[in-house]
Amino acid sequence: MMLTHWSGDLFTPLSSLTLATTAEQASSSMIFTSVLLSLVIVYLASKLGGELSKRVDLPPVLGELVGGVIVGVSALHLLVFPESGATATDSYLMSFLQWLGHLSPEATHSLFESQSEVLSVLAELGVTILLFEIGLESDLRELSKVGYQAAIVAVVGVAVPFAAGTVGLMLLFNVPAIPAIFAGAALTATSIGITSKVLSELGRLKSKEGQIIVGAAVIDDVLGIIVLAVVASLAKTGEVDVLNVVYLIISATVFLLGAIFLGKFFNTSFVAIADKLQTRGQLVIPAFTFAFLMAFLANAIQLEAILGAFAAGLVLDETDKRKELDQQVIPIADILVPIFFVSVGAKADLGVLNPAIPENREGLIIAAFLIVVAIIGKVVTGWAVFGQPQINRLAIGVGMIPRGEVGLVFAGIGSASGVLSKPLEAAIIMMVILTTFLAPPCLRLAFKGSEEPTESLDSLNPLQEKEPAEINS
Amino acid sequence: MMLTHWSGDLFTPLSSLTLATTAEQASSSMIFTSVLLSLVIVYLASKLGGELSKRVDLPPVLGELVGGVIVGVSALHLLVFPESGATATDSYLMSFLQWLGHLSPEATHSLFESQSEVLSVLAELGVTILLFEIGLESDLRELSKVGYQAAIVAVVGVAVPFAAGTVGLMLLFNVPAIPAIFAGAALTATSIGITSKVLSELGRLKSKEGQIIVGAAVIDDVLGIIVLAVVASLAKTGEVDVLNVVYLIISATVFLLGAIFLGKFFNTSFVAIADKLQTRGQLVIPAFTFAFLMAFLANAIQLEAILGAFAAGLVLDETDKRKELDQQVIPIADILVPIFFVSVGAKADLGVLNPAIPENREGLIIAAFLIVVAIIGKVVTGWAVFGQPQINRLAIGVGMIPRGEVGLVFAGIGSASGVLSKPLEAAIIMMVILTTFLAPPCLRLAFKGSEEPTESLDSLNPLQEKEPAEINS
Repeated sequence: MMLTHWSGDLFTPLSSLTLATTAEQASSSMIFTSVLLSLVIVYLASKLGGELSKRVDLPPVLGELVGGVIVGVSALHLLVFPESGATATDSYLMSFLQWLGHLSPEATHSLFESQSEVLSVLAELGVTILLFEIGLESDLRELSKVGYQAAIVAVVGVAVPFAAGTVGLMLLFNVPAIPAIFAGAALTATSIGITSKVLSELGRLKSKEGQIIVGAAVIDDVLGIIVLAVVASLAKTGEVDVLNVVYLIISATVFLLGAIFLGKFFNTSFVAIADKLQTRGQLVIPAFTFAFLMAFLANAIQLEAILGAFAAGLVLDETDKRKELDQQVIPIADILVPIFFVSVGAKADLGVLNPAIPENREGLIIAAFLIVVAIIGKVVTGWAVFGQPQINRLAIGVGMIPRGEVGLVFAGIGSASGVLSKPLEAAIIMMVILTTFLAPPCLRLAFKGSEEPTESLDSLNPLQEKEPAEINS
Repeated sequence: MMLTHWSGDLFTPLSSLTLATTAEQASSSMIFTSVLLSLVIVYLASKLGGELSKRVDLPPVLGELVGGVIVGVSALHLLVFPESGATATDSYLMSFLQWLGHLSPEATHSLFESQSEVLSVLAELGVTILLFEIGLESDLRELSKVGYQAAIVAVVGVAVPFAAGTVGLMLLFNVPAIPAIFAGAALTATSIGITSKVLSELGRLKSKEGQIIVGAAVIDDVLGIIVLAVVASLAKTGEVDVLNVVYLIISATVFLLGAIFLGKFFNTSFVAIADKLQTRGQLVIPAFTFAFLMAFLANAIQLEAILGAFAAGLVLDETDKRKELDQQVIPIADILVPIFFVSVGAKADLGVLNPAIPENREGLIIAAFLIVVAIIGKVVTGWAVFGQPQINRLAIGVGMIPRGEVGLVFAGIGSASGVLSKPLEAAIIMMVILTTFLAPPCLRLAFKGSEEPTESLDSLNPLQEKEPAEINS
């Protein structure tokens, strides 16, 4: 009802042949204009940030996130979203479009809301496709081979940070249950991409430690996405009811296992359908139809869309078409995923952690607490490995630290759910940035210390590092 | 201002840690849920339609459009848009989501508006990428080789249908100037894809006639997009002022020629940038940044976004990266372009042309008039060729008939501009469908008649047709 005025701008009834006024028409094409310009900003921020990160040997996803922070509410104010409490006047992009289109303040406000709504959906499509791609690249057969050592590391690496983070936030900082649980859940993530890249650079991907870390990170993805689905659903209902939690854990697990099980039968039909199709998109359209349908079904049973997309990816990974499909999903993910990463950065108001302002002290302490729990909670996982006295426990623990893109998925979903306070959201983003930033050099150090004791004095010298090996695990 | 209530559902302020109520949260994730389900419907409709079309030897784009008509306001009412005068209660998709999410009628109404807004932007992104792809596949060097015969055919094929359509609608049917001009403009399109496919099936792509048709269709694309930019801009300002028309024609031409000219310098920088980038999307992100920026600039100077995207495609076509880029744009176009085709079909209310209802008589007569002008206006182009007494003039004229995807771009932009009446919009869609449907068999007939006079009695026998040749022009 409230939208009637604005929808009039967008969709002039066709039944009347009279022309809409110039002001209304301007708004109609302005929405698309604003989305185009926002996408240009998103792509520039993500590419500049990603490439600079890569040059200084950091994960590109870190740069994309920081690029988002820079164009967002924390710095340049080009891309801001109403959910961080901003209005159209806070957005330089909107001020520019207002000047360009000679818009009234009301029209600019409407434009701001519409642009944010569309960008949020594009970012959600981005994270859905990211999880579909992660599912597509997670090999279920590898998963069954990783063994119980990796499984224990993964379970400890999910349980300890989750419990310590949630309980600590509630007891030490009086954070309410739901946001505390969400922040705790964000601590459980491990980025397999970043860890395996560093391992391969060190030539340790095939070592005992490397195998356990990668196996644990894969299981961590699956556990993490179940945790996220449960926590996000709790956030929706707003209550922490034991029965509800049990129901959600069971339904998320059943959904994932059920999809994988039924997927074995669906696989053959999928390949048969894709083989029969003769028009353009014969592989990518059935795949996305399946992924979006699974995402919709997950949403419909109160779980998260990304759980469905991840399950769809796991299922299609098992087909002969996997490689061809992967090839085609890559460019689609390339243009949609950055919208998600940059939005997460743009929405996070890191200004609330500015140490110069006294009121920010509590937020800063929470951020420091989360970072400490994030590091210690993963480092301890190394000591969960048993029967391997010679193993480098520190390296395993450190290898589980980086949150990377998976941590951002938690931060993004948490931000969209609206349960996180500004300082808590900023603290989670800082936790993701710092763990992702610190893990690669720490992992290099951890490996240097153990197997090459005679060279330990050189461990700070990067020139002594081994040549990068290929990632082929 | 009007949106405040709804935006509250979407973006709960983070500053308060209190939880949003269940009803509000449902709406927030419901927007994404509704978009996911809409995309599933779009993909099913486009693939079913496209594949069925292909099986009966018709262009797939025709099937995608008809698929859209079937799921849209004309038949199944799964995908309806407010611009056709529909409300949430007219959409079975919305009724289903209302039931699924236990939504109030107000929340459902808001959801309907948001879903339509997001889908419209996705469709606009789809048509932008379609034109970028068409630009990328149009070889400018080929264009300079096609010669004056093709240029004359193209100019006559744009001028005659445009003039006859516009003047006819204004004088015979008292249609106001702006919608008449828009409908006239929609008559100018020629689909190079459909014509060259049929020509290659007949083994006539390299014949004199084939060369002229393909050359004329390429020039037609360029002229058509200039006509569309001018006409859509007239629709925005709502006035047909001679000075304004002259300004728009000049600015559209200067924009296109300027982009191509400056593009020659930009080309080398683009390749240098893409070569230097090391992170994912190193080719597709700079390309889309450029395309969206050009689309934005075209929009900013009161022209159409698609003109900018087309110019960007023409520019990048000249680089060494063209093939690699084309490869990566294909899957992106595959998932976004169907949203446009299906939306155009879904929005068109063909019910207004139902002959059983007496009030529809005028609409039906307009549709018949447009179809006759669409066919005759292109068939006459064959007689514009001079100095070639032996040439098959009928075949050239018939080859220019199919409107295909280019005609749909006109219909879609016209529909979004809101200047077309329902019957006029439906008449344009019918014109696109019929010309696209009739052209392939007519072209076969036209070619049979001329060069194989001894076999003319067999011209109706499809078994006598030549083997398909490869498209390689």
